[in-house]
Amino acid sequence: MTVARLGERGVIRRIVERLGPIAPASGRLIAGPGDDAALIEPAAGRLLVATADLLIEAVHFRREWSPPALLGHKALAVNLSDLAAMGALPIAFLLELGLPGDWPEADLDGFLDGMGALARREGIAPAGGDTVTSERLHVGITALGAVEPGRVLRRSGGRPGDRLAVSGPLGASSAGLRLLEQGWRLRTDGEAVPPRAGSSRDLPRAVAGRLLRAHLAPCVDLAAGQALAGWASAGLDLSDGLSQDLHNLCEASKCGAVIDAALLPLDPDARAAFALLALDPEIAGLEGGEDYKLLVAVPAAAGDPPAGCALTVVGELSEERLGIHLLRGGGAEPLPRRGFEHFPGP
Amino acid sequence: MTVARLGERGVIRRIVERLGPIAPASGRLIAGPGDDAALIEPAAGRLLVATADLLIEAVHFRREWSPPALLGHKALAVNLSDLAAMGALPIAFLLELGLPGDWPEADLDGFLDGMGALARREGIAPAGGDTVTSERLHVGITALGAVEPGRVLRRSGGRPGDRLAVSGPLGASSAGLRLLEQGWRLRTDGEAVPPRAGSSRDLPRAVAGRLLRAHLAPCVDLAAGQALAGWASAGLDLSDGLSQDLHNLCEASKCGAVIDAALLPLDPDARAAFALLALDPEIAGLEGGEDYKLLVAVPAAAGDPPAGCALTVVGELSEERLGIHLLRGGGAEPLPRRGFEHFPGP
Repeated sequence: MTVARLGERGVIRRIVERLGPIAPASGRLIAGPGDDAALIEPAAGRLLVATADLLIEAVHFRREWSPPALLGHKALAVNLSDLAAMGALPIAFLLELGLPGDWPEADLDGFLDGMGALARREGIAPAGGDTVTSERLHVGITALGAVEPGRVLRRSGGRPGDRLAVSGPLGASSAGLRLLEQGWRLRTDGEAVPPRAGSSRDLPRAVAGRLLRAHLAPCVDLAAGQALAGWASAGLDLSDGLSQDLHNLCEASKCGAVIDAALLPLDPDARAAFALLALDPEIAGLEGGEDYKLLVAVPAAAGDPPAGCALTVVGELSEERLGIHLLRGGGAEPLPRRGFEHFPGP
Repeated sequence: MTVARLGERGVIRRIVERLGPIAPASGRLIAGPGDDAALIEPAAGRLLVATADLLIEAVHFRREWSPPALLGHKALAVNLSDLAAMGALPIAFLLELGLPGDWPEADLDGFLDGMGALARREGIAPAGGDTVTSERLHVGITALGAVEPGRVLRRSGGRPGDRLAVSGPLGASSAGLRLLEQGWRLRTDGEAVPPRAGSSRDLPRAVAGRLLRAHLAPCVDLAAGQALAGWASAGLDLSDGLSQDLHNLCEASKCGAVIDAALLPLDPDARAAFALLALDPEIAGLEGGEDYKLLVAVPAAAGDPPAGCALTVVGELSEERLGIHLLRGGGAEPLPRRGFEHFPGP
């Protein structure tokens, strides 16, 4: 049974059935799918946070690389990561699906189950959206959350002298992407399958599987975002790679920055994979995207980090005119804005 | 200059420049583009309304049929129509753009200008989104609005005996679509150009131009939605065609319905076009989509319609077990759910 044979109303019915009603972590969903629009009531004294991210086949993912459940997880996770990066609690999401007519029903179900499992775990309620035909599979999600006005984590609050810290190890997702490019695959049962050839084929399967999952189904730490929002001066989620996202934070905060390569918390499995792939692990860690950890600026006066946040200091903010530099091998070199870029310019 | 040469940040800068800051008609936009997510503060005592609609090239539109400014207008208009259909005032929107790298910069600008003009007129502020590469142009918009809790226009409030009324003439959009299919084109300067052949080529250009614009750049009446929200028992916007949308309203309200074909307010220009195209005007009016007028249910006790709403009664709701019928030529026939359907089922 394909999507085309389900029909539009069949697809919508399937979405409503499999995602089911989910109690939001914040606020109230007054009306979800089935009307012209969703009705949401954010809690009193809260700001509403809205974010949208789009995953398009052949641009952001390949259907043959990702088990459908992981794709469903990831499409929602990247949006939850933006809520986390604002210190917000999830309320509801809208799902905008472009579906090729020949997509198998079982894949649609797997996709929805992966998304639903994450939605239930984080308390974000499906609230409507749009379902259309499309040559390529694409998944747009708009996530809505709420945050207390005094506890928003903006990009613009950093000041020279603030330490820069990341909320977890880097590089696992981009190592996973390199493994996919070399021919590694993750089966639907979770087992990693090595390619016939390629420098990485002798990587232990368990290690490869962890890296593939880091790329195909990233974890998002909403609690860390909420904890850091009351404590850090600025922050964002690492989606485009540390080097590019650092530029974004510095631009918004009107600061320069210095990062110490020796302090970067590279994921050990990623380091092993980069070694087999003959890639410079520090550069790969700096430029690899989709880690979905948080990068925060921390004022000197901030005191100890909130409980449960494993932060690693990687550098500090400086005066804007000093630019953005990487300390490495005893010297300082300019750190260019590099990482994933749609429409790379001239 | 193409989109690919502008680069991702160039595209985003262009969006921010050309859409510019816009004061929302309701609530406050605390932070728009430039952070991980937008921050919105709906007014006190208001519900937040969220809706998303996706337009994909080759599915919803053809690039060669639509001047870019009209496409920008329409992508936002179809979302505003869902806010209108809830009785909501606009606050902000997120723009999710999938752009082919070879799309000319001038077309991107025209698209944004068309969208910006409508956004300014209706007071809906651009608040962020996502911009990615894509083989086909596609435009996803999430619109956020606010409504007073006691004045929401739901689909589910209709009761047997309520009159059914539409807020404007029908058929102009679907007539415009038929003209495009016959080869009519709307030039960027607004002039309609007839095809070399086809039964409609002798239609006056001014008439054809009006119908083409009705399809390519539909008008949305937000004020009518707000006025009707306090007065009608149920309502929705006519996007898929009266026959299909009536089924949606009846399903949500658990009612049947009778529509009188003789009462349908067919647009006179559409009637002229349907005649040349040898189409049954009543059926074309019932099944043609994208009119973006409102269909409302009105209780007998409701009294006179609100000032400024030109309503036409077309039938009434009945008991659910009686089904949905069309009165025509002295008899009653079942009115099937027919109209635009993605993935038409088996």
